[in-house]
Amino acid sequence: MKKTVNVGLIGFGTVGRGLAEALHRHQERIAKQCGLHIRLTKIFARSLTALPPEYATAQLTHSADDLINDPDIDILIELIGGIEPAKTFILQAIAAGKHVVTANKALLSQEGQEIFTAAAAQGVEVGFEGSVGGGIPLIKGLKEGLVANQILSVMGILNGTANYILTRMTDEGIAFAAVLKEAQQLGFAEADPTYDVEGIDTAHKLAILMSIAYGMNITHAQIATEGISRIEPLDIDFAREFGCRIKLLAVSRSLESGEIEARVYPTMVPVSHLLASINGAFNAVEFCGDLTGSIILSGAGAGKLPTGSAVAADVVDIARKIAAGSVSRVPALSYLAEHVTDRKIASSEELRSASYLRITALDKPGVLANIATILSRHGISIESVIQKGREENEPVAVVILTHTASEAAVAAALAEIDALAAVTAPTVRIRMLAEE
Amino acid sequence: MKKTVNVGLIGFGTVGRGLAEALHRHQERIAKQCGLHIRLTKIFARSLTALPPEYATAQLTHSADDLINDPDIDILIELIGGIEPAKTFILQAIAAGKHVVTANKALLSQEGQEIFTAAAAQGVEVGFEGSVGGGIPLIKGLKEGLVANQILSVMGILNGTANYILTRMTDEGIAFAAVLKEAQQLGFAEADPTYDVEGIDTAHKLAILMSIAYGMNITHAQIATEGISRIEPLDIDFAREFGCRIKLLAVSRSLESGEIEARVYPTMVPVSHLLASINGAFNAVEFCGDLTGSIILSGAGAGKLPTGSAVAADVVDIARKIAAGSVSRVPALSYLAEHVTDRKIASSEELRSASYLRITALDKPGVLANIATILSRHGISIESVIQKGREENEPVAVVILTHTASEAAVAAALAEIDALAAVTAPTVRIRMLAEE
Repeated sequence: MKKTVNVGLIGFGTVGRGLAEALHRHQERIAKQCGLHIRLTKIFARSLTALPPEYATAQLTHSADDLINDPDIDILIELIGGIEPAKTFILQAIAAGKHVVTANKALLSQEGQEIFTAAAAQGVEVGFEGSVGGGIPLIKGLKEGLVANQILSVMGILNGTANYILTRMTDEGIAFAAVLKEAQQLGFAEADPTYDVEGIDTAHKLAILMSIAYGMNITHAQIATEGISRIEPLDIDFAREFGCRIKLLAVSRSLESGEIEARVYPTMVPVSHLLASINGAFNAVEFCGDLTGSIILSGAGAGKLPTGSAVAADVVDIARKIAAGSVSRVPALSYLAEHVTDRKIASSEELRSASYLRITALDKPGVLANIATILSRHGISIESVIQKGREENEPVAVVILTHTASEAAVAAALAEIDALAAVTAPTVRIRMLAEE
Repeated sequence: MKKTVNVGLIGFGTVGRGLAEALHRHQERIAKQCGLHIRLTKIFARSLTALPPEYATAQLTHSADDLINDPDIDILIELIGGIEPAKTFILQAIAAGKHVVTANKALLSQEGQEIFTAAAAQGVEVGFEGSVGGGIPLIKGLKEGLVANQILSVMGILNGTANYILTRMTDEGIAFAAVLKEAQQLGFAEADPTYDVEGIDTAHKLAILMSIAYGMNITHAQIATEGISRIEPLDIDFAREFGCRIKLLAVSRSLESGEIEARVYPTMVPVSHLLASINGAFNAVEFCGDLTGSIILSGAGAGKLPTGSAVAADVVDIARKIAAGSVSRVPALSYLAEHVTDRKIASSEELRSASYLRITALDKPGVLANIATILSRHGISIESVIQKGREENEPVAVVILTHTASEAAVAAALAEIDALAAVTAPTVRIRMLAEE
């Protein structure tokens, strides 16, 4: 039995330092748990001239080849993020027979198939627990803990920045732009927040979870995605009146047709649902298994030490397998490579949900009748209508809750409604979380 | 690589049938995930004369020896519950070189050390995911997902019956005895509900989680335990006024002294804490890791298919290890047997918490002054006092919220308070969940 496993690290940013700290702080404890020593031997960090003193036992290098070609390194950890050069480094490491651990959700949700296929061919492992949900053991829980279940749905709050913004808007009634600006100043949000607030990062993570949950090939580009930038405090107030909170949800379901639903959108979540209570930068995912029913896992969805913990867990997992000679015991995507299938993503026009519609219209006689007629013509029935404030010739918010209707019908109706002369701004639509 | 793993099942009650259904329903899907067939070959069920037709491929037996001595059985599943004969069957199976899967929390929390020691000596695995939290992958998540963390605390709602009763009392204002009776009629609660409502079952489960979380030997008898049978609707109303819900919590913490806190008691949980939102028969556990911070896992905490799912996950896990020749890759209690330690459980007198005290006293002048004097003499400071209703010479509820004080001080003060002539019933005390 091999008693030392050597690890090389590419990328020494926030998560890289978290991983280094996790391995450093818990070296002895981990040895007591797996009977072997995990040594971080080389760190690739182009911008540094020296490593912080606590990591001085590792060697600093400015060349990734130094790690990839080092026969003593068993596991290569990639934490630089982005598509290139991360992809090339990972494929080179796999070709060199090394196991890989990464937290790179953008890469895996786009190029995962190529990476996992190369790893399976080489008989090496790819760990990616850190790519979704920070320190929450989501991937291990899904892949191994729920292995005996058919997964019926995966739903969750997967972006801490978006959830932080919505939580501040909810608790304090502040507008989206103001919260975003403050979050940027505090370093919680990126200078370019597009990935976070437009749902793209959430779609990356959903694609990764779906590939495991349903044993399927999928890229994030196949997921219809809407963000939260058009949500206003008014919508949050209405949500509260309806006993809901607005959350940016990733939603996927295995449909009876055999197709898979996959969407990211702001959603009205009833306060009785646990996901409505996930606040601030926290993440949570609900897996619905045919045997278990709803299983919810939550925790800090990002950050130096939480994500470092997840990356370190993958490293320990692979180190144990190396020591026991049992690499590839659990397939990367849960299903054996030959059983990973292409499943059809349901066209969003076919999907159905109930909706909250906030229509901005001049308060003139007949406007509501026109709107109701349009909805009715498209087969959309109305559950309730609320109109607040009243000022002649000033636009007011007309809020309509609809019963379940197809996306196609709602899109067609909204196109007509927004074309009415009395409607002065695009309608904001928020889907209602479907009852179980 | 071995392509078939044979499984024998002792016990064909609710969970036994759930496990059989899990393996039966998902035979093909599991084969696609692990590349091998798991066959349930023999079922020990003394009370049956024939197996239901869907399990007729298995052989019914009335003798456990039939399974234990069958060299073709790789994994023995024990689902009869209780201490004996379960313990003997498990030890015999281990001695015969078989891996064991069990959901027997009473047994493991009392005799776990002997069983795990025997298994380690024989180089066989003991899986016990089903013993805590039904289908929630708690043990895998803690043991492998959080492997890189020092676990600072484990806290949770671990008994679905008690949580169901408290939820009904909270939502509908019904008294404990009435809800319990109804739950018994509906089959949710046992005829003898002591284990569930007095916290004993919760202590069993906490002992199992603690053994993994802290790498320590512990039995449930070391855990100070209080139940919920003395909670009244009045307490629930007061909890609501204080922004809390009453939950039966298992609580353990690694203290700075090196000792471990371990208790089960009804607790006032602020509604802002996710555990306050866990309702009905659901379970949830919060692990606090030094790297991850709070990680919460929740789901159905019991039941045929959820617990069947957990038992099946253990079977698949061990089957994969058998196939890969990597048994004992992850130690049963997370730490290698030689590193499992005896840690001192903190004496409950030393522990500190803030309390809710509901004192039943005659509404006479000077009573409150007497009570306040006693508390003050024991160094317990008062945060607030509420007295509701007023009827001369009739007992009223005097509710006092205290600041943090030691158990010893509160116990001594309550002994004096309850001895006052004006105090007509034992004081109900509910601890407040400590702020993080």
